[in-house]
Amino acid sequence: MNKDLKTQIMDLVAPDLEQVEQALAENLSPHLDLVKQIASHLLFSGGKRLRPLLFIHAARMCGYTGKDAVLFSTIFEYLHAATLLHDDVVDGADMRRGKPAAHTRWPAPQVVLTGDFLLARALDIAARTREPRVISVIAQITQEMSQGEIDQLAQKGRNDVTEARYLDIIERKTAVLIQGACQCGAILAKVSAQKENALKSFGFHLGMAFQMADDLLDYTATAEQLGKNPGADMREGKLTLPLIYSLAKAGPGDRQWLESMMADPDVGPNHFKKLQKKLADWNAIAYTEAKARTHVEKAKKNLAIFDAAPSKSVLSLTADYAVHRKV
Amino acid sequence: MNKDLKTQIMDLVAPDLEQVEQALAENLSPHLDLVKQIASHLLFSGGKRLRPLLFIHAARMCGYTGKDAVLFSTIFEYLHAATLLHDDVVDGADMRRGKPAAHTRWPAPQVVLTGDFLLARALDIAARTREPRVISVIAQITQEMSQGEIDQLAQKGRNDVTEARYLDIIERKTAVLIQGACQCGAILAKVSAQKENALKSFGFHLGMAFQMADDLLDYTATAEQLGKNPGADMREGKLTLPLIYSLAKAGPGDRQWLESMMADPDVGPNHFKKLQKKLADWNAIAYTEAKARTHVEKAKKNLAIFDAAPSKSVLSLTADYAVHRKV
Repeated sequence: MNKDLKTQIMDLVAPDLEQVEQALAENLSPHLDLVKQIASHLLFSGGKRLRPLLFIHAARMCGYTGKDAVLFSTIFEYLHAATLLHDDVVDGADMRRGKPAAHTRWPAPQVVLTGDFLLARALDIAARTREPRVISVIAQITQEMSQGEIDQLAQKGRNDVTEARYLDIIERKTAVLIQGACQCGAILAKVSAQKENALKSFGFHLGMAFQMADDLLDYTATAEQLGKNPGADMREGKLTLPLIYSLAKAGPGDRQWLESMMADPDVGPNHFKKLQKKLADWNAIAYTEAKARTHVEKAKKNLAIFDAAPSKSVLSLTADYAVHRKV
Repeated sequence: MNKDLKTQIMDLVAPDLEQVEQALAENLSPHLDLVKQIASHLLFSGGKRLRPLLFIHAARMCGYTGKDAVLFSTIFEYLHAATLLHDDVVDGADMRRGKPAAHTRWPAPQVVLTGDFLLARALDIAARTREPRVISVIAQITQEMSQGEIDQLAQKGRNDVTEARYLDIIERKTAVLIQGACQCGAILAKVSAQKENALKSFGFHLGMAFQMADDLLDYTATAEQLGKNPGADMREGKLTLPLIYSLAKAGPGDRQWLESMMADPDVGPNHFKKLQKKLADWNAIAYTEAKARTHVEKAKKNLAIFDAAPSKSVLSLTADYAVHRKV
């Protein structure tokens, strides 16, 4: 099913994807060579371009015919890349998309500043929309994202993160940007408030599902699929839903065992395999999957008010793909 | 003369200054407490509010009567604070305005993210101007500043920075923001292109003079005046105009001595005093002062097309103050 979905989506978005790749490269010039190198290292390392594609197809489904959809779509990829650069420095993560993280190849200060540059680049392009509401949405997204990351950082290493807190963190660190990409497509197309809100809600639920699936993959995917070792979140002291659920449900013995695993940054592959099995036994995987699927269903319901169109299919298929993907 | 100038300016801006302080505090709420703490540590540690005051008086001199001048003025202080937070992390500087730098009190990641937040806050407020050109100017400033800082970082520890390169760096790291504050005042007041350009040029030259004076103070002021030990730039491997000029003019013996000073991050007070004396003997101090004064004169010439008004006096006096200040 996974391959099918991916193929279906790719058939619909291939021409856009090519233009997005081109625009992402073009809009980095002319700038300092070092900035371009660092930004390109991350930007052209196999990202899915989820956010630009969602923006383009949200706008198109809403009837947007402006010629700058591709240009404007880069806003959301640059913003995303800016936060990834800062997050990698902040988290000290070594790998990203199967490549060494930028800060392992360049000094952290340069990476931080390149993140700043990409943030500013995104806002510069946003200004070109000449649509103050788009700019407001983007500025607010950026505020939410930085606060979400700080909040997550404050929770690092804690064993008492609640599910509510987790939902709040993933909303800010992931869902608001995807929500914003979809909403801005609607704003530029000047649709009714009802349609704009439907797309905003679609993006929110898709974002929540996407992050839950991502957090799940960290326990269920192979190193090859992930491009980094699984279990990275746990090793970084980040509690995500599978562990939060397990800690809440576990008896004292299991809880102690879990906490000892979490306290060990060098947990070996055999112990990790045991953990994976336990998470499945405790229903933590199924629980997280079910939560993610509920968000996908909620996302798709928001599309009901739009007429059938290829772009509507892209959005709907992408929502399904968010939870079915293996990487 | 210094005190006189300061008093004259303060008499003209005191009511604005109070409102700016209030707006800076108000616009940080409601947000994550940690963000507020880190941002406040820097924001309320005795900044001169040069950028907000320039914006307010540029706008007022151009006839702007909107009620949001004070709110919009915070854009430029938040942007400035964001870059200071990132720069301190990047430079590893321990002190800022006589207080421990934020990253010595909080982990660097939180400080970086608070910088991101302030950047986003600035852009959020910029969006409220509903003036796409203001937003463009601000996005471009941010791009220039991050690139200027990266460029400066790349020059760190090099002994062959040219005066042209130095001018390019200080333009990007300081002048563009001050230029932007003045220009945005003009844009919001919807004056002619001639007047807008005059204010832009005023801000550019004031910014250049201001940074040169700052770089000079690092060699001429006392630790008490600076709130940190003088010679910080040299210890961080940053070549500024006094040293660049000296290196270019020095004979082989002096040049070798200078380079050995620059290579020693723990240069003692006696050696530093000797350096200060030499910089004066070599004319490096006078040369830098003269350059800064030329920029002040160029800045003030741009004010000629505006009618006499208290705000015009503020701008003109501030230009003088940029090079006469002792801190």
